[in-house]
Amino acid sequence: MHYNKNFYEIRSNNEIFEKIVDEKKDIGYYKLPYQETHDIKEFAKTVKQKHIVVIGIGGSSLGTYAIHNFLRHKQNGKKLHFLESTDPLDIKKRVSKVDLEDSLFIIISKSGTTIETISIFKYLHSLIKIDKSNCVCITENDSKLKIYADKNQMKTFDIPKDVGGRFSVFSAVGLVPLSILGVDIDDLLKGCKEVNDSFFEKEEYHTHILNKARFLVENKNRFNINVVFSYSSLLEGFNKWYIQLWGESLGKLNINGTRQALTPVGLLGPVDQHSFLQLIVDGVRDKTVTFIKIEDFEEDISIPNISLEGLEELDYIDNIKFKELINYQADSTIKAVEELKDIPCDLITIDRVDEFNISKLMYTFQLLTSVVGKFVQINTYDQPGVELGKIILKEKIKKK
Amino acid sequence: MHYNKNFYEIRSNNEIFEKIVDEKKDIGYYKLPYQETHDIKEFAKTVKQKHIVVIGIGGSSLGTYAIHNFLRHKQNGKKLHFLESTDPLDIKKRVSKVDLEDSLFIIISKSGTTIETISIFKYLHSLIKIDKSNCVCITENDSKLKIYADKNQMKTFDIPKDVGGRFSVFSAVGLVPLSILGVDIDDLLKGCKEVNDSFFEKEEYHTHILNKARFLVENKNRFNINVVFSYSSLLEGFNKWYIQLWGESLGKLNINGTRQALTPVGLLGPVDQHSFLQLIVDGVRDKTVTFIKIEDFEEDISIPNISLEGLEELDYIDNIKFKELINYQADSTIKAVEELKDIPCDLITIDRVDEFNISKLMYTFQLLTSVVGKFVQINTYDQPGVELGKIILKEKIKKK
Repeated sequence: MHYNKNFYEIRSNNEIFEKIVDEKKDIGYYKLPYQETHDIKEFAKTVKQKHIVVIGIGGSSLGTYAIHNFLRHKQNGKKLHFLESTDPLDIKKRVSKVDLEDSLFIIISKSGTTIETISIFKYLHSLIKIDKSNCVCITENDSKLKIYADKNQMKTFDIPKDVGGRFSVFSAVGLVPLSILGVDIDDLLKGCKEVNDSFFEKEEYHTHILNKARFLVENKNRFNINVVFSYSSLLEGFNKWYIQLWGESLGKLNINGTRQALTPVGLLGPVDQHSFLQLIVDGVRDKTVTFIKIEDFEEDISIPNISLEGLEELDYIDNIKFKELINYQADSTIKAVEELKDIPCDLITIDRVDEFNISKLMYTFQLLTSVVGKFVQINTYDQPGVELGKIILKEKIKKK
Repeated sequence: MHYNKNFYEIRSNNEIFEKIVDEKKDIGYYKLPYQETHDIKEFAKTVKQKHIVVIGIGGSSLGTYAIHNFLRHKQNGKKLHFLESTDPLDIKKRVSKVDLEDSLFIIISKSGTTIETISIFKYLHSLIKIDKSNCVCITENDSKLKIYADKNQMKTFDIPKDVGGRFSVFSAVGLVPLSILGVDIDDLLKGCKEVNDSFFEKEEYHTHILNKARFLVENKNRFNINVVFSYSSLLEGFNKWYIQLWGESLGKLNINGTRQALTPVGLLGPVDQHSFLQLIVDGVRDKTVTFIKIEDFEEDISIPNISLEGLEELDYIDNIKFKELINYQADSTIKAVEELKDIPCDLITIDRVDEFNISKLMYTFQLLTSVVGKFVQINTYDQPGVELGKIILKEKIKKK
């Protein structure tokens, strides 16, 4: 008989950190900050089309959308479209906004056989001639999609086998479309690098992430919901990306066979002050809240000095810049939540709306996810739970 | 000494139903299905502008967006815009898409002094002359906004005092903009009426809603998260509306002073199969799931019969209509979740994409919310938890 004393133990922070250091060699996303981007940038320069159509779902689109959404006002005027849902009305609506004759189609699928992606790709073939002049594929180097691309002499970019979909935004998956849009992908990687280096080299920095992860894990039965409350519409895409990252990574059976889960919720202030905030403030204490605010929006529009007859009591808002107002709103909500004293919350402040800052934010959340995964002893990087549905789907269609 | 035996009791279904019948006279949304719509329809006919700009937040916009989003492909070509966030970059982006000279501005605020709404309204004054020719106000009949409108001879529509923001979609709040867009508002009310009449008159129907509410309440500590998993992009707005309705209505201290909360999550299939589904399937059993699917999309685009070299293994999807594919996907996910046997789930099927069906769906959720509220002994219709933040905000700005 043998008894394994470490089987259901939560480790010390040091041991968890050592485990993360160990997995660096097998998990590809840790290496992405140091990749060579020359080929991607050179390709991006050659793209003449005005419309960029990303065909990809989940990890193949959410990260790109998050960064595009954050930096939209700083891009080069090309129009980015996403085709991912199989909803026929959604496909029709989105395709109607695309100038098909002036489009580059970017097909993204890690496995190369994602049913939504290939269905939509086939549908596009019935609308427009697709060949190497208007199509590139981003996929694993030995996938069926890669074979297709090679047979048609299409340009391809590689998704490394050890980079999972929801950790792939800083691989070609995100960098190719973003570079075409004029996003400075080297600055993106600089942000990743700074976070990665700090995490592995500075004790202060990894202690911070380890402590947060430990708190979330040790209180996961009480606070099973983790809210990200972002005070800017620019972070709408980030919220969606976070939901996939957190939910799909951490919703797992662990090595003890017990179900783990921390449920992500993404909110946008100030809109969701008029919706979800009531639930946070007066509801059951089952949520942690991470507020995110932007220090400087670099946009100076303000509320004019106009008195509206009947509405004079609101004149105190005159001459305030909207960027000040939204941060007053953030600060007021944060203060109101803090004063309750029994809702665990923290605040991330983004200095500026640029590449460097969004990638730091996203990379930090990736690290936090990895650390929580280690604490709860799961495989953070797989998604075995969705296989059954795919098998049933294939049977259903083939039976038809 | 006196002991009140009913203080922390869950009542019988009958008693709960009686309480709902009782509150009908005080809670305005139950009366909305029977309202007169002549005035709204006549006004809608007079609107010549191409752009319709709704300035309103939370309950003043989410319901309209939900119905607009569902019926978008059936409308009359007018362009609907929403201004709600105080994010300066968001305001700039949205305003840039509006032809201000050819716009009708609809200002919606129940209280008449919502800070986001009035801030944006003032900002618009600095861009374009706003008067009775291009502006209407929807508000309570004695609000400050009503005074403003009257002073400027602007057309106004009334939000009844006993109709709360998140229950106001079938009042002028939703009906005015939707009618202008060509939505058949009488058909909307017909759907509400059918649900309301069935609920109050047919035992079978209210038993169904009461049983569902009872299950959710009796298991609320185990299943504290209620997922709505909608298989159509058309329901994206509905999901957002549901999140406000559920979260803000049910996140309350009850008459025993204990915190209540059922946390809403809105998902869109098939996209979120690639994100949140893993968490549902393998994660902790803390979620109920309500699937919603659309029986007929009335859109016949299909996957063409095209074999792509290298991708031949996917030829089994050829000739399938997308509306079939998305429902195969829904059915497969539902089957996979059902087979687990320990995730409570139910399925709502919408027959057709029309006014009658979306209002039935939304009205049913309103009733379900009211019934759950009665079970947990809260005031479903107020939102006291957000007041502190508003007070702090006002102080912060005035101090500036």
